[in-house]
Amino acid sequence: MTTRQPVLRLRAGRAARRPDTLAVEEPLLVRVGGEVLTLTMRTPGQDFDLVAGWLVSEGAVAAPGDIVTMRMCPDEDNTVEVVLAPDATPPRPRAFVSSSACGVCGADSVEAVRTALRWPVSEDDTQFDVGVLSVLPDALRSEQKVFDRTGGLHAAGLFTAGGRCIEVREDVGRHNAVDKVVGAALRDRRLPLTGHVLQVSGRASFELVHKAAAAGIPVIAAVSAPSSLAVDLAEECGLTLLGFVRGGGMNVYTHQQRVRVGPIPRQRELQ
Amino acid sequence: MTTRQPVLRLRAGRAARRPDTLAVEEPLLVRVGGEVLTLTMRTPGQDFDLVAGWLVSEGAVAAPGDIVTMRMCPDEDNTVEVVLAPDATPPRPRAFVSSSACGVCGADSVEAVRTALRWPVSEDDTQFDVGVLSVLPDALRSEQKVFDRTGGLHAAGLFTAGGRCIEVREDVGRHNAVDKVVGAALRDRRLPLTGHVLQVSGRASFELVHKAAAAGIPVIAAVSAPSSLAVDLAEECGLTLLGFVRGGGMNVYTHQQRVRVGPIPRQRELQ
Repeated sequence: MTTRQPVLRLRAGRAARRPDTLAVEEPLLVRVGGEVLTLTMRTPGQDFDLVAGWLVSEGAVAAPGDIVTMRMCPDEDNTVEVVLAPDATPPRPRAFVSSSACGVCGADSVEAVRTALRWPVSEDDTQFDVGVLSVLPDALRSEQKVFDRTGGLHAAGLFTAGGRCIEVREDVGRHNAVDKVVGAALRDRRLPLTGHVLQVSGRASFELVHKAAAAGIPVIAAVSAPSSLAVDLAEECGLTLLGFVRGGGMNVYTHQQRVRVGPIPRQRELQ
Repeated sequence: MTTRQPVLRLRAGRAARRPDTLAVEEPLLVRVGGEVLTLTMRTPGQDFDLVAGWLVSEGAVAAPGDIVTMRMCPDEDNTVEVVLAPDATPPRPRAFVSSSACGVCGADSVEAVRTALRWPVSEDDTQFDVGVLSVLPDALRSEQKVFDRTGGLHAAGLFTAGGRCIEVREDVGRHNAVDKVVGAALRDRRLPLTGHVLQVSGRASFELVHKAAAAGIPVIAAVSAPSSLAVDLAEECGLTLLGFVRGGGMNVYTHQQRVRVGPIPRQRELQ
């Protein structure tokens, strides 16, 4: 369920390279009677419980006997094959939602996003000061306070490298808040968003890093933790990914060359 | 973006009926060239920015001119129609994910879930003590600490009315954590989950209330805020929805008859 990876940890003006523990995020495909019915980005483990519970939600299953067999597909990663009892009704997806996930393993999904990028975000050599980056969550919250009296909205904000706020949007869905920010920037003819940073109020998933990369944003900063696949995607696409940006500190997960922290004490690399 | 609704607020042993502000959650359908390409649960407002930003992520749009027209469909609620420029490539959903949303307005989605329920959760007359309910988030966190050292996992836990923990599951996706709990309960032949409470670590969305209702769980409790559509769905399906369960207090949004709080001081009803 977790994986470890070295991260540049910035706290109280000090930089140190440390191992950090990440929640694993990987796609899971569900085939029922040979047909792919859903794909979700999940943390591996208890996959049969995940699929069985999903089938309950979809109204297809009410008792253990409604599922005849369930197995991991031997030929494909991250794919569960289900055979339902003859009298169980296979779920029909009632609505289609596109997902950033496009392969049956995280590496496929990363590669598909990387090859589809329009703008060479990896070539963006804008420098971002730690001092500026560390105040963006507060800047986001102060904009948010105006709107969100519910505690139920996620926020995304677009800022320049100098810390100027371009757009802040809120939504019940974190991906929607990012889409609204990018859409507003498109309308303002700002794309690609070279030299900008996207600050989000919660965690950083694969999907959010994908959206930042697709808009040409070189830095994505999250108040909470990133997932493993978010880090993989940021690494491959050349984005700087910051997590736990709070209390004046932050973790730099990828492409630290854009983060200006002054001289970093030499530390032995941790594997 | 927000709506107000009366709620039973329990703090420090006192019960008061107060108006509470909720983040609005409603489906949005996107049609490109006549074809429905995506559906998302979003907070209404800046819908054109949302759609434009989504089209950027999907690689279909890179400049404002790639979108010829975008308009709210006059005949259908919550539907945006897009016409792309002839040389723009319409996005092809690369993966299909089923969504609980099934109509073009929240009321349709609520009605579709309600009529599909297998078990009459509204008839579950189990009583739940406020004292038991108020410690469930801590019980969830203490289980979570064992696994989650990342800060990146959502948790869902199933408890009896007496507070006994049946299952706790974690995942990068909150809906997956709930599916895993329900799937484990199915395997253990516990469905329908009459007399149980589902405690979740974050917010309560339409999708999570749907999953609880589909499993026959009469009470869903969230550490954070519910959305407007989560409250509507819980009300219609007969679930007790608790939010902001923290610090010994909680808000009861729907079906308070299952919550045993002792005598409630008479207060005038707020509209």
